[in-house]
Amino acid sequence: MDNIRELNVANAQSMSAAPSDASKAAPLAGLKVLDLTRVLAGPYCTMILSDLGADVVKIERPNSGDEARGFGPFLPSGASAYFASLNRGKSSMALDLKVDSDRETFLRLARQADVLVENFRPGVMESLGFGPDQLREINPRLVFASASGFGQTGPYRNRPAYDVIIQAMSGLMSITGHSADQPARVGASISDIVTGMFTAIGILAALRQRDQTGRGSTLDIAMLDSTVAILENAIARFDVTGKPPEPIGTRHPSITPFQSFPTRDGAIVIAAGNEGLWTKLCDVLGAPELATHPQLATNALRTEHQPLLENLVSIRTETQTTQEWLVQMSAAGIPCGPIQTLDQVVNDEQLVARGMFRQLTTAANETFLAAASPIRIDGQSPEIATRAPEIGQDANEVLSRWLGKTTNTSVER
Amino acid sequence: MDNIRELNVANAQSMSAAPSDASKAAPLAGLKVLDLTRVLAGPYCTMILSDLGADVVKIERPNSGDEARGFGPFLPSGASAYFASLNRGKSSMALDLKVDSDRETFLRLARQADVLVENFRPGVMESLGFGPDQLREINPRLVFASASGFGQTGPYRNRPAYDVIIQAMSGLMSITGHSADQPARVGASISDIVTGMFTAIGILAALRQRDQTGRGSTLDIAMLDSTVAILENAIARFDVTGKPPEPIGTRHPSITPFQSFPTRDGAIVIAAGNEGLWTKLCDVLGAPELATHPQLATNALRTEHQPLLENLVSIRTETQTTQEWLVQMSAAGIPCGPIQTLDQVVNDEQLVARGMFRQLTTAANETFLAAASPIRIDGQSPEIATRAPEIGQDANEVLSRWLGKTTNTSVER
Repeated sequence: MDNIRELNVANAQSMSAAPSDASKAAPLAGLKVLDLTRVLAGPYCTMILSDLGADVVKIERPNSGDEARGFGPFLPSGASAYFASLNRGKSSMALDLKVDSDRETFLRLARQADVLVENFRPGVMESLGFGPDQLREINPRLVFASASGFGQTGPYRNRPAYDVIIQAMSGLMSITGHSADQPARVGASISDIVTGMFTAIGILAALRQRDQTGRGSTLDIAMLDSTVAILENAIARFDVTGKPPEPIGTRHPSITPFQSFPTRDGAIVIAAGNEGLWTKLCDVLGAPELATHPQLATNALRTEHQPLLENLVSIRTETQTTQEWLVQMSAAGIPCGPIQTLDQVVNDEQLVARGMFRQLTTAANETFLAAASPIRIDGQSPEIATRAPEIGQDANEVLSRWLGKTTNTSVER
Repeated sequence: MDNIRELNVANAQSMSAAPSDASKAAPLAGLKVLDLTRVLAGPYCTMILSDLGADVVKIERPNSGDEARGFGPFLPSGASAYFASLNRGKSSMALDLKVDSDRETFLRLARQADVLVENFRPGVMESLGFGPDQLREINPRLVFASASGFGQTGPYRNRPAYDVIIQAMSGLMSITGHSADQPARVGASISDIVTGMFTAIGILAALRQRDQTGRGSTLDIAMLDSTVAILENAIARFDVTGKPPEPIGTRHPSITPFQSFPTRDGAIVIAAGNEGLWTKLCDVLGAPELATHPQLATNALRTEHQPLLENLVSIRTETQTTQEWLVQMSAAGIPCGPIQTLDQVVNDEQLVARGMFRQLTTAANETFLAAASPIRIDGQSPEIATRAPEIGQDANEVLSRWLGKTTNTSVER
């Protein structure tokens, strides 16, 4: 009953196209964000802020706009689903920051903004005359956030960075995959995304301080730093053992069994992290004798003899289907799950009940599926806007919303 | 010169052990966080808040405490580097939430708190009498944040969840690795970590609203939702093409070449995302004819004929060392980088210049290396505390700090 109600709420919400509706009672309603970001890391940050109700104005180059408009996957009209998903709910204004009249418009907006986010290469904003110190002269309350590949300081600051390069240099790639001679990239652009997330966290923390002191601060978030910050215990593990961790497939470095095993029709992931669960697992597998096997009697022994364990467990898991094992293991209280592909994920009953997927809409009224915000507040399925802007479409509306002007000829294109 | 000064700042900061020092002028100074979290997702959230200066009081079970105290890697004294890294800068108080006097102490703390974070299974806080509605009766300003595997609602809400299970069910595992029949887990516990990050974002947004309305809200953040939210364009890619994305090693799904290639002594990651860079790459490889090869002339063709391209590029990259190629390609402006292992990462000159590694200290005065906060504010290398608490060590100090009491006998253990 609850699930049905939630689904209806989700459907109702995905109907509401206007960003202003979506931000009515949202936690960041009224927050003015001047968004100079392109591609992924920066736009992911301002997407998080927009999903939470902030008023995000995206400043794009006239004509070409954000280069992500040219990144696939594409819908039949030629619209980029990549761009449309990341920029839902934002307003767009086209400004050439080298042209005087546009520079003036930009400065008027910057005077009103709570936050500016940019992900140009270090030094670009300063050379435009719009560095943090320059803008804070006209708006001391401005929080100025820069996201970049390597950061605003240090010997690599001017190097070009892409997600795959940062995944490689940060060490993340060296611990992902099945063997040290063939490490794998995380299938999502995780370095870009966690950089966007840390930038959002920094902005919200700096705003809290700004509200108390009256003065905004400058944030310098690097993809390389951010990716190193999510390595979890790999750094300590190397430091304590002296041995760099290597890729170990689906396994956990120190808990066994905690990995995927083959089934008759695919695979199942099992996380039997303590003695009780290991004993239960052996029972469900019809092999209670494994629980007292001398080489598998403790977690330390199981980790040491993992290849033996994998072998002995696999020959049993291979006898039934994933679904059959899921039912039996779940009934026994053993944490387990299927390795779902995206066709299964979008139909997963938990994710559907949580309202995690929404139909977004392009300018040509095509629809496509995207993930909603995972930040659920007061029992509400997260509300998100469903449309991204065309280049410069909101110029006059932004001027009136931010500057109280009803018309402005200088920005019509 | 700048780098040397930064290194000195980093060293000076890693000397300062007291959390109260570290939070002096930090953006979240004065924010009171009551932390009932254990293991990884919740503690990562409160670590972020603590690194930003919040006053985090960790409530632990008497005697055993957070179970992460028993997780490796371990230092010679038996202290867990895993626990010590995640809980740096927090205060610890041991309370048995089923014992009347401790429940009373807990309620007095909850009355003072700005934020409560917990990651028990859904329903546990309510059954203790400490659900969000119950606590907001005594403290309407409280932001109550729950992090869990599947969320507080939906059919799977009571299922046990571990990082590897969520990576599998979310679809992330299905797009990571080298082939569809052998997907890989991301080498860090990314589902736990992004859940901690989204929880921190939700808390900071809810605090902003709380400061305006006087009323805190309830946050429900799930590991499954959070991992789906970082899949980037995989959902849209499936929806638009009808084909579930599969693992593709180190490659990018639609940009080529954008992957690792073998060298004489290892591998190099190359991201040549446009025609100009592809032409330059062919020149550096000594094979300018590849740039006009009919099957490799455009990005679309290169992506279609990726196996051919990988072959033709690899036979060239294999002739020199990674370092030799890095020098030549960087000089030509081609984005590239090495696949660094952790021993190289901790010595990377950019990360060292940025102050991203700190020596943390255990109760037995052992030191080990951990990543600092990647949120760099006003040009300062992020400041973090260097010690995690022993179970319950700060009981009297917390009571005096939060409740203005100088002594309290009921909490001495």
